[in-house]
Amino acid sequence: MDRNAPVGVFDSGVGGLTVAREIIRQMPGERIVYFGDTARLPYGSKSQDTVLRYSRQIIRFLITKEVKAIVIACNTASAYALETVEKELDIPIIGVIRAGARTAVRATRNGKIGVIGTEGTISSGIYTDVMKAMRPDIEVTGKACPLFVPLVEEGLLHDSVTDEIASRYLSVLKGRFIDTLVLGCTHYPLIRSTLKRLMGDQVTLVNPAYETAIELKELLEERGMAGDEDFGGGEKYQFYVSDLAEKFTAFATSILPEQVKETRRIAVEEY
Amino acid sequence: MDRNAPVGVFDSGVGGLTVAREIIRQMPGERIVYFGDTARLPYGSKSQDTVLRYSRQIIRFLITKEVKAIVIACNTASAYALETVEKELDIPIIGVIRAGARTAVRATRNGKIGVIGTEGTISSGIYTDVMKAMRPDIEVTGKACPLFVPLVEEGLLHDSVTDEIASRYLSVLKGRFIDTLVLGCTHYPLIRSTLKRLMGDQVTLVNPAYETAIELKELLEERGMAGDEDFGGGEKYQFYVSDLAEKFTAFATSILPEQVKETRRIAVEEY
Repeated sequence: MDRNAPVGVFDSGVGGLTVAREIIRQMPGERIVYFGDTARLPYGSKSQDTVLRYSRQIIRFLITKEVKAIVIACNTASAYALETVEKELDIPIIGVIRAGARTAVRATRNGKIGVIGTEGTISSGIYTDVMKAMRPDIEVTGKACPLFVPLVEEGLLHDSVTDEIASRYLSVLKGRFIDTLVLGCTHYPLIRSTLKRLMGDQVTLVNPAYETAIELKELLEERGMAGDEDFGGGEKYQFYVSDLAEKFTAFATSILPEQVKETRRIAVEEY
Repeated sequence: MDRNAPVGVFDSGVGGLTVAREIIRQMPGERIVYFGDTARLPYGSKSQDTVLRYSRQIIRFLITKEVKAIVIACNTASAYALETVEKELDIPIIGVIRAGARTAVRATRNGKIGVIGTEGTISSGIYTDVMKAMRPDIEVTGKACPLFVPLVEEGLLHDSVTDEIASRYLSVLKGRFIDTLVLGCTHYPLIRSTLKRLMGDQVTLVNPAYETAIELKELLEERGMAGDEDFGGGEKYQFYVSDLAEKFTAFATSILPEQVKETRRIAVEEY
């Protein structure tokens, strides 16, 4: 395996760019091939079978790009597909859930953790299962927040409507006296300040995107697979989507530290 | 062509059931095969190429069910695909846009019409083009309302948040003094009372679902293709989706006049 091969990162759309951004910040020597499934998003309201089928197609595409490792930068796909696809692959693959869960379990003082995410992520119960396996006495309350993604995509990051919806979603978590809240969807860090204000200073917010980049770094270093900064030519960051490449380029440029020059559209269902 | 063959009706998800409901009410002698593309919804934020490819796959599936005519019960797919696919087919196919546009042009008194819909429908400009072809002096103002579909799907049909978002979206239309408003997305009739209250009694709301069923009825009668009530066995209404069949069955039962017994899931991308 070539240590300077790229890392594959995928998501249902743009949300996973928050994970790519952390990888770029924490591992400037790594190349990235990113895929966003913009023709079939969102994943959060779809079934496990469908999300698994879509994830397998994307992984087959990433393998054609000779990636050395894969990051599922989508909570729903991590919840529904990781356990199955990791058995089918020869290269390491990680999701965003275990790293976020581990950090939350370490952070909590009173043992009460809240998790917010899509309907798929929350109804899968995966955060609860993973955290209870790490520490059985922990109390986990999950809450699906299906309007957060459309509100973020509509740009209402600081808006009275987002405040009102967030306040309704979070009330059940406040009632359980949680002291740690996992942002279990990659869009949610974009409304972090609203969530922080509503939950109060005593509640720690955990962003799995950040923790996942750390996990990737450790994994690559352990296996002697970390990339060099001089990777010797080629595009350092490549972006692929299944639809609306130009819109993706504009969005990616706005949240990544570097200008994105080009996004290519592919027919992912053919993989 | 068998006059008792079913009519094919498709949408990106459940919204087109408002069209199916009107067909059932107005044409009790017709059989229906309905397809909802729940694995790839929504269509409103996707590109023309993608929506056209998805529509062709669905049409190929409906043709295997030997439908005698097809209704595109989705404004975005009508905007992006109808003109192309009607040239490729031997059976009649209609969308929801022309019937809605014709009714709006007849209803307006001051010649100022508003259209609300998804980003895809509004940015296509199709309602404006169709209405101006019918009456060139008409003034059409389109407004994309991307949060309405998620708000409806979250069940916030009568809610202060929906009021607030609707009030923002509609303000530009009120400022243009429209007297007729086209509900250019099949989900919107479900928040009709909110829209009516905000726009006021002097504004006529046009529901293309209703008008499309009338157009279908006229078309089938003209061609001698209207079904008999005694269609002789088989399931009268068949429902197919690409994901989450049980959730669809529950939703369809809540809005159709008859209990839906079963929804079948198919792999539509293989057609």
